[in-house]
Amino acid sequence: MPQSSAYQDSGVDIAAATRANQLMAEAVHSTHTPAVLAGMGSFGGCFDLAASTNKGSVLVSSTDSVGTKTLVAAAVGRYDTVGQDLVNHCINDILVQGARPLFFLDYIAVAKLEPLQIADLVGGVAAACRNATCALVGGETAELPDVYRDQAFDIAGTIVGIVERERMLPRDVVVGDAIIALPSTGLHTNGYSLARRIVAKTAATHALEHTPYVLRLPELNHDTLGEALLAIHRPYLHEVEALWNAGVTLHALAHITGGGLYDNLPRVLPDGLGAVVRRGSWDIPPICSWLVHAGELAEREAFHVLNMGLGMLMVVPSEDVHIALNAVSDARLVGEITNDAMVQLI
Amino acid sequence: MPQSSAYQDSGVDIAAATRANQLMAEAVHSTHTPAVLAGMGSFGGCFDLAASTNKGSVLVSSTDSVGTKTLVAAAVGRYDTVGQDLVNHCINDILVQGARPLFFLDYIAVAKLEPLQIADLVGGVAAACRNATCALVGGETAELPDVYRDQAFDIAGTIVGIVERERMLPRDVVVGDAIIALPSTGLHTNGYSLARRIVAKTAATHALEHTPYVLRLPELNHDTLGEALLAIHRPYLHEVEALWNAGVTLHALAHITGGGLYDNLPRVLPDGLGAVVRRGSWDIPPICSWLVHAGELAEREAFHVLNMGLGMLMVVPSEDVHIALNAVSDARLVGEITNDAMVQLI
Repeated sequence: MPQSSAYQDSGVDIAAATRANQLMAEAVHSTHTPAVLAGMGSFGGCFDLAASTNKGSVLVSSTDSVGTKTLVAAAVGRYDTVGQDLVNHCINDILVQGARPLFFLDYIAVAKLEPLQIADLVGGVAAACRNATCALVGGETAELPDVYRDQAFDIAGTIVGIVERERMLPRDVVVGDAIIALPSTGLHTNGYSLARRIVAKTAATHALEHTPYVLRLPELNHDTLGEALLAIHRPYLHEVEALWNAGVTLHALAHITGGGLYDNLPRVLPDGLGAVVRRGSWDIPPICSWLVHAGELAEREAFHVLNMGLGMLMVVPSEDVHIALNAVSDARLVGEITNDAMVQLI
Repeated sequence: MPQSSAYQDSGVDIAAATRANQLMAEAVHSTHTPAVLAGMGSFGGCFDLAASTNKGSVLVSSTDSVGTKTLVAAAVGRYDTVGQDLVNHCINDILVQGARPLFFLDYIAVAKLEPLQIADLVGGVAAACRNATCALVGGETAELPDVYRDQAFDIAGTIVGIVERERMLPRDVVVGDAIIALPSTGLHTNGYSLARRIVAKTAATHALEHTPYVLRLPELNHDTLGEALLAIHRPYLHEVEALWNAGVTLHALAHITGGGLYDNLPRVLPDGLGAVVRRGSWDIPPICSWLVHAGELAEREAFHVLNMGLGMLMVVPSEDVHIALNAVSDARLVGEITNDAMVQLI
């Protein structure tokens, strides 16, 4: 039925929404496993638990957004990556409790609905879901011109995963356990408010105020700032599965997000325990080094706001280090658990 | 640890976020049932399935927002209701597939983080969750000054519920089934872009351009426009449970949201079937009648954009009508299922 003109006059473009729905349908469907029930009505996403549950199963869920990384994406005009950032961030957040993803729902809100842009955003969400065998079972796209600034958008999402109760993490962390790092690809999804301020300051000195992200820098291996800042948040599901398959006993995982090393590692340690992390034992991504230099950040501040290359920290028994490093080629031994209740860079 | 000044200069106020977290903690905790596992780390919400699942359980999930109802709330300066709207909307959306709520996660994004405002928003979410014995297991609050307009905010959320596969709705809808309506409290969460336009036009004629929602109207039983427009979205979980307990066989439920009667009822009917709904068999809320009059909306348009008092439609066997109307005092018989594949007001 044709949409009423009074409603369109209100700034809600139903035709664009319909077109966006058509464009995203195929991407969404590509994530569906046999556990997703279709044709049962279209209000709620339906996930059949029969294949997944045993007695003692726990659902682990997390909602997150990608913060102001959306502003970098909008400035660069690239919309196919932040959906991947969002899903991968959520995958890592439930992985630290030992959970594997079951399904995902996205929420996208825009000032003005552009079907191709929405299709790119949802396409990114779907690609990351497929990569993790996670079904994209639902979502909502809202056009809210009076809420969002021109050209601005927000993307948030919710993941639901599952873990056997007795396999939940963290568990059994003791003094002397090793800390192994999996590298980040860059900022992942944290620190963008600070990064954008530093970029703006730098761009001004190059007379690039209006197009700061095209600045191509030797320090970034000749990538542009836009390319370096949009590097996709890395998911660590496959690496953690590789460790499980290799027989490594994981005691804890710490996903280094907002608050950095200093806030995120203590969250998974028992009271009274701490950690040392050795400078120089892993690679700091060029974009992080550049931000520290250009923003004149103190080390403590840098490690509080940025992941500084430490994407995921894994706490394992010291005797499992060798197997772990063999199972995941870019894993690095970076430190160990101590009985001093603080996190120290040494 | 004190937050670095460079980060605060970027427009992200960590102290306000911490204060907001303290204020919301009690409200969140008040929604927790024994199924919520605490103390297992704080990245993901953990929901123990042991109490809920049988073989054949299906998880039904839905993500939604309250659209531009947030702009009315911000204009009126009242933040404790839209969280309830959000949860209740989601409860109804999974109820139409027969699912009861298990848990909820919220996403709140603001231009500037005001702890008391966030506490009111989350307090509303928690109140509605408690009312439905739905655990609020997670959430995210983001301060994104360059994404949202000044004073604007968005609130979205994800619900996960459960239903036995053989009890999923819709099922067995046949010609002659009765349609019973449960009344809405007003617009619920749809039609606010149109409503705000009509309000702005009306306020201009009263020289109230800057404070349109204080307009108090006899047609609204002397409520203000703000009060009438912020009426809380009604959840129908308890009414549907009352029907189940009374032995009524539910064939289908239609939650009348965006798209109104014309779009939402057909979604739960088998191909080839339609419905007649009788004018005058239920009460149209004063705010809907006022919008139709002030906005000069055609009837078809009004029933396409607004719920017009039909909050939830329940399709039941004709022989169960008497029991259903006795079990829920404000339920009304409004029509029946036909073999004419359209929805007609008669």
